[in-house]
Amino acid sequence: MAKVVRNIMRADPAVIDGLAAAGVATVHEAQGRKGLLQSQIRPIYAGARIAGSAVTISAPPGDNWMIHVAIEQLMSGDILVLAPTSPCDDGYFGDLLATSAQARGCRGLIIDAGVRDIRDLTEMGFPVWSRAVSAQGTVKETLGSVNIPVVCAGAAVNPGDIIVADDDGVCVVAREEAETVLAAADRRTANEEMKRKRLAAGELGLDIYDMRQRLAEKGLKYA
Amino acid sequence: MAKVVRNIMRADPAVIDGLAAAGVATVHEAQGRKGLLQSQIRPIYAGARIAGSAVTISAPPGDNWMIHVAIEQLMSGDILVLAPTSPCDDGYFGDLLATSAQARGCRGLIIDAGVRDIRDLTEMGFPVWSRAVSAQGTVKETLGSVNIPVVCAGAAVNPGDIIVADDDGVCVVAREEAETVLAAADRRTANEEMKRKRLAAGELGLDIYDMRQRLAEKGLKYA
Amino acid sequence: MAKVVRNIMRADPAVIDGLAAAGVATVHEAQGRKGLLQSQIRPIYAGARIAGSAVTISAPPGDNWMIHVAIEQLMSGDILVLAPTSPCDDGYFGDLLATSAQARGCRGLIIDAGVRDIRDLTEMGFPVWSRAVSAQGTVKETLGSVNIPVVCAGAAVNPGDIIVADDDGVCVVAREEAETVLAAADRRTANEEMKRKRLAAGELGLDIYDMRQRLAEKGLKYA
Amino acid sequence: MAKVVRNIMRADPAVIDGLAAAGVATVHEAQGRKGLLQSQIRPIYAGARIAGSAVTISAPPGDNWMIHVAIEQLMSGDILVLAPTSPCDDGYFGDLLATSAQARGCRGLIIDAGVRDIRDLTEMGFPVWSRAVSAQGTVKETLGSVNIPVVCAGAAVNPGDIIVADDDGVCVVAREEAETVLAAADRRTANEEMKRKRLAAGELGLDIYDMRQRLAEKGLKYA
Amino acid sequence: MAKVVRNIMRADPAVIDGLAAAGVATVHEAQGRKGLLQSQIRPIYAGARIAGSAVTISAPPGDNWMIHVAIEQLMSGDILVLAPTSPCDDGYFGDLLATSAQARGCRGLIIDAGVRDIRDLTEMGFPVWSRAVSAQGTVKETLGSVNIPVVCAGAAVNPGDIIVADDDGVCVVAREEAETVLAAADRRTANEEMKRKRLAAGELGLDIYDMRQRLAEKGLKYA
Amino acid sequence: MAKVVRNIMRADPAVIDGLAAAGVATVHEAQGRKGLLQSQIRPIYAGARIAGSAVTISAPPGDNWMIHVAIEQLMSGDILVLAPTSPCDDGYFGDLLATSAQARGCRGLIIDAGVRDIRDLTEMGFPVWSRAVSAQGTVKETLGSVNIPVVCAGAAVNPGDIIVADDDGVCVVAREEAETVLAAADRRTANEEMKRKRLAAGELGLDIYDMRQRLAEKGLKYA
Repeated sequence: MAKVVRNIMRADPAVIDGLAAAGVATVHEAQGRKGLLQSQIRPIYAGARIAGSAVTISAPPGDNWMIHVAIEQLMSGDILVLAPTSPCDDGYFGDLLATSAQARGCRGLIIDAGVRDIRDLTEMGFPVWSRAVSAQGTVKETLGSVNIPVVCAGAAVNPGDIIVADDDGVCVVAREEAETVLAAADRRTANEEMKRKRLAAGELGLDIYDMRQRLAEKGLKYA
Repeated sequence: MAKVVRNIMRADPAVIDGLAAAGVATVHEAQGRKGLLQSQIRPIYAGARIAGSAVTISAPPGDNWMIHVAIEQLMSGDILVLAPTSPCDDGYFGDLLATSAQARGCRGLIIDAGVRDIRDLTEMGFPVWSRAVSAQGTVKETLGSVNIPVVCAGAAVNPGDIIVADDDGVCVVAREEAETVLAAADRRTANEEMKRKRLAAGELGLDIYDMRQRLAEKGLKYA
Repeated sequence: MAKVVRNIMRADPAVIDGLAAAGVATVHEAQGRKGLLQSQIRPIYAGARIAGSAVTISAPPGDNWMIHVAIEQLMSGDILVLAPTSPCDDGYFGDLLATSAQARGCRGLIIDAGVRDIRDLTEMGFPVWSRAVSAQGTVKETLGSVNIPVVCAGAAVNPGDIIVADDDGVCVVAREEAETVLAAADRRTANEEMKRKRLAAGELGLDIYDMRQRLAEKGLKYA
Repeated sequence: MAKVVRNIMRADPAVIDGLAAAGVATVHEAQGRKGLLQSQIRPIYAGARIAGSAVTISAPPGDNWMIHVAIEQLMSGDILVLAPTSPCDDGYFGDLLATSAQARGCRGLIIDAGVRDIRDLTEMGFPVWSRAVSAQGTVKETLGSVNIPVVCAGAAVNPGDIIVADDDGVCVVAREEAETVLAAADRRTANEEMKRKRLAAGELGLDIYDMRQRLAEKGLKYA
Repeated sequence: MAKVVRNIMRADPAVIDGLAAAGVATVHEAQGRKGLLQSQIRPIYAGARIAGSAVTISAPPGDNWMIHVAIEQLMSGDILVLAPTSPCDDGYFGDLLATSAQARGCRGLIIDAGVRDIRDLTEMGFPVWSRAVSAQGTVKETLGSVNIPVVCAGAAVNPGDIIVADDDGVCVVAREEAETVLAAADRRTANEEMKRKRLAAGELGLDIYDMRQRLAEKGLKYA
Repeated sequence: MAKVVRNIMRADPAVIDGLAAAGVATVHEAQGRKGLLQSQIRPIYAGARIAGSAVTISAPPGDNWMIHVAIEQLMSGDILVLAPTSPCDDGYFGDLLATSAQARGCRGLIIDAGVRDIRDLTEMGFPVWSRAVSAQGTVKETLGSVNIPVVCAGAAVNPGDIIVADDDGVCVVAREEAETVLAAADRRTANEEMKRKRLAAGELGLDIYDMRQRLAEKGLKYA
C-alpha cells in the first residue's frame, strides 16, 4: 500500500502568492470557514507567512523515512505536509532535512507531530508549524506514502492543495477552488479596509452592520 | 435571559494603575492567593502589562455577536472579559473588533477561547490573553449577555472588577477590595526589594526567613 | 523520609560545557535516544542553551519550601531540577528565588510544574524550562527531599547527572556516561557538518544515505 | 482568611428531591442552560442520581484537612463540593471519609480533583463525581475554608445551592431559584413525554417542531 | 454552502453485517491500518458492536439543528456521524433524538462532540461513541450540511461509507472497498483462530512467527 | 543497546499476594506516598485487583515486537510493564498476546500506551491498565529492551519490582522494600478498621484525630 505519486497538479503560482498575502483568517472566511487545521498546530517562530502546494506525507509514528522520499518530489514553492498514522510528538524533522528541503525550494513544513533544531530552523528562515517541539529522534524502518490524500490535524489535504500558514495557524484550500477563493479573499480584504477606517473613527459595529433591530427582535434587554 | 447592564461601577483609576504596576504575581499574593485565571490563558505577545475595569461578556460557543454589543458599553480604561457558555477555541476576536475597542479606549481582551489576526493585534499594541489562537470564524445568531457575573477560566468575575494581566497570566481583583489589595501589594513590593538585595548578596532564604529550626522540627535530615 | 544529601558527585566542567555546545537534539541522539524530558517542558524565553549538574528536588504539590533548602546545596554551574510528587501547575519559583540561585552560580531551573515573574527572569537572564507559567503561589508547610533520584517529566534524574537544555527541550545524561556521550556527540556534529554541505548543494538524502534499494525491497512503489 | 461558615440556608427538601428526579439535562435546560460543571467531572460508577444542598470546601492542592472540618457542618441530605485552589488530581477522599460523611447523612461528593478507594465507595453506595481517580494521598497542613462561595469545575457554587448529579454530569441550581427551576423542569418533562411518543411513532422533528420553512429561509438546499 | 444530499449509495447489508462481526481491530488491520477514529471517541456503554452506512452531519459548534434534518435521510441500518466545524463538547444528542433515530432504524451515533441522557440511551439500547458526555444544550440557529464528506475525529468519512464500532473504538471503511476488506478480515479471523490455539497451548510467538533469527540480525542481545 | 535480561530477582510470592490484598491506596500510603503511576493509567474493566513481579519492556512508539520477546521471560505470577520510548496511544496488545501471556501465568499488563480487543480481554479475565484503548495496530521493525529499568507513566520501575494494581490505579513497590511495605500496609489496614467503626458510629475525624486545637492555632475561624 506504500506508494509515491510523482506527478501532482499544482495551482497557479500567482494565485498561491495571492493567498499568502491574504493570510489565513481571511482565506478561511473567504472559503466558507472550512479547511482550518486544529489550533494546536503552532509556528516555531512568529512572523512567517507563506503559501505553497502541498506535498503530502503519511508516516508511521516515530519514523521519518518518508520525508527523505518526499523531498525528492519537491518543486520550488512547495510545502511539506506530514500526517502521522497515529498520534506522535516525536521530532521528525530538523536542520539537516530543512537544509535539503530548502535547497529544493521548499517554503516550509506543516507537521501534526514534533520538530527539532528550532533555533537552527529559525536562523535559516525555514518556517514550521507543528504540534510539538521535541528532540526525540525517529527511525527509518517502515514505509509510508507520499502524495496521497491525508488528514492532517483534522483537515483533509490532497496533494497539490494550497497550504496557507501564518501566525494565526494553517488553512488548506482545494486546488480547484484556489482562484475563486482568492477572488473572494481579495473582496473581503477590500471591504475590511473600509470598515477598519470607520471603526477606528469610533463608529460602532452595531451601526455599521445594522444590528440593533435584530438584537431587539431576538429579545436582548438593556438594563 | 439575555441582557446588557449599562451602568456598572468602576474602581478609582489611580488604584487600577497601581495594580498594573504591581503585576499579577504580587497582586495575587497580596489578596491571599485568590482570583487567578487558569494558566492556560496566555498572552499573544510578551511584555504587555495592563489593568482595567472588566466589561464582561457571556457568549455562546462559536458566536461573537455580543462583542459588538459590549463594545458600546466600553469606557476608556476598560478591559473586555469573554467567557463562552461552553468550551470553545474559535477565534471570536480579530483586528477589526480590536480597532473598534481601541477607538473606545479599551486596554485589552481576556478571553477563555480563541483569538485571530494576532500579527495585526501585536502591531496595534492591543494585548490579548486567550486560551487559543485560531482563525476559526464565528457567527452572529444567538444572544448572550453583557456585564453580568461570569466565570472566566475558573475565576469568578463581576463587571467592574479590576483585571490585572501581564506575562505571568491574569488575575481579578474585586472592585470593593481594590484599594486594600493595592496597599498590601505595595507593602509586598517594598519588602521584596529589601530581600532581593540580601539574596543577591548571597544570603540564604533559610537564614533570612529563619527556616532552619522549623525544618529540623518537622524532621528534615541532612546526609 | 525527607532528607537532604549534601555531597553529590559532579561531572568534569569541560565535559558539561561540551554537552551544552552540542545541544539537546545531538546529545539525545548521541546517547541512543534516551533521557529526554517530555516535550511539554518548554523554555520561558528563546535562545538559552545551558548544561549543568542536577541538584534535584522532590516537592509536594503547591509547596516550594524545599527550594530554599536546595539553594544552599548549589555549587557554581549547577541546575535545579524540581519534580512535584503529584501533578501541579503552581508557580513554585520567581524572581527572588532566582536572585538567590543566581548568586550561588546556578545556571537555570528545570521544573515539572509552574514558574512566575517570567519577565524579571528573562531580564535577569535566568532561564527556566517549565510545564506552565503561573502566578499561583505556594506554601512552606511540608517537607520533601533534595538530591535524591527523581522522575522529572518522564525522565529519571539522579543528583549530579548532567542536564542539557535549549530551545528543543531538556535532556539528562547520566554522570557516568557523560564523557562517552560527549565524544559521540562531537563525532555526530562533525559528521552532520559534512552532510549539511552536501544537502545544501542539492544532493538528496536518498542518495547520501543510500536508501533507494532498501526502500524498493520493502516494497515502495512509484506511481 | 480561612473560615468556616456554620449556618447556611438550605432549600426545601421536596424541591431538592424533585430536582433529582428531573435529572441534570432537564434541570440544566429548565434554568436556561447555566450552572453546568465541566464535562471532565465524571461519576465513579454508573446509575447514581442525587440532589442535595452544597456544603462547599476550598482546599489547597494536595491537602484534605478541610474535609474533616466540613463533615462536622453536614446535615442530612447535603452534598460535599470541593474546589482546590489550584489544579490537582490527588485522591483527597476515600472510604474512611465516606464512612464519616455517610454517617451524617451526606448524599455524595463533587470534587474537582481526585478520589480513591472507589471499589469501597461503590460497595457503600456513596457516589462521587470527580476529575480523576487517584490513590495519591494528601496532607493536613494548610487551612482552607468551608461554606464560602467557590468556583468548582467552571461553575460558581454558593453554600446551600442545590447540586444535581447523575450519569450526565453535575449541575448547580441557585437556592433562590430552586422552586422556579423545578416548576420549569416539570413542565419540560411533561412536554418531552408527549414528543417522545410522537417521535417513537415515526413523526419527524422537522414536522413536530415546524422547522422546514425556517430551514428554507436560511438557505438550506436539498440535492 | 449548506446542503443536504438525499441520495447516497450504501454497501450490501450482508457485507456490513460481516464487518460488524469481524470487529474494529480486525477490520482496521484488514484494510491496512487506516480509517481509525481517534481513541478519545469512546462508547457510552460497554458491549455494543455495530456496523452501518454513514449518514454524515457537518454542524456548527453548539448547534444541533442539522441532526433533525439528517434523521429524515436515515434508512434502516444507517449510523449517524457528526463532525462539528470546530472543537465542541456540548451535548448535541439525547433521548428524544435517539427515539426518533431509532424509529427510523438507525443503529447508533458517532459524534466528535458530546452526548447526554446516557442512562436513557443505555436503557434504549441506542449506542453512541462520543468524545464527551455533557448535559450542555445546543441551539438551532445555524445551518450545516448532511451527507457531505467530513473529517470526524481525524478520519475522513464519506456518506455511505461503512462505520464499524465496538468497545475498541470506531473505524470507517470506504464503501467501494467494503467487500475486499471483509474478505481480508475473514481470512484474518480464521488465521487468528489457529494461532490462538497454539499460543494457548504455550507455544511462543517468537517461534510461531519465526522471529528469532531476525531479532538476532537486528542485534538483540540476551544477558 | 537493545538487550534482554533473562534472570531477574523476584520477591516472595506470599509478600506479593499480601500487597495485592492491601490494595493500591494502602500500599502507596504504607511506603510513604511514592511509586504511584499517573492517574491517566486506568483499568479496562472494574474489579481486578492484582500484584506481581514486573517484567519490563522498553518499546519504540508503534512497535510491539518486544512484547513477544518479553513473554518468553515471563514466570508464573509476573506482570508485564510496557513503557514506550515516546508518547504513543497505539494498541500494542490484544487477545492473541494475552492468550500467550496467560498461558505462561502472567497476571496482567500495565502499559503507558494503548490496548485493544478489550471485550475479549475482559471475557478472558486478563486485566490491563492502560493510557488508552485503541485498535491502532503496531509493527515489528525496531528493537527495544526487556527487563531494564524503565519510567512507566511517571514512575521508575525496575525488573522484579512488585506491581500492585486495582480500581484506584497502579503502584510500584521496590523489591527490596516489599516486606517492610507489606508490614506497614497491614498495620495501616488494621488501624483503619478501628477508625471505620468509630466514624460509622458518627464520631468525627476532628475528634478522633484530635485536630481542633491545631486548627485553632493555625487560625481557623468559625462564623
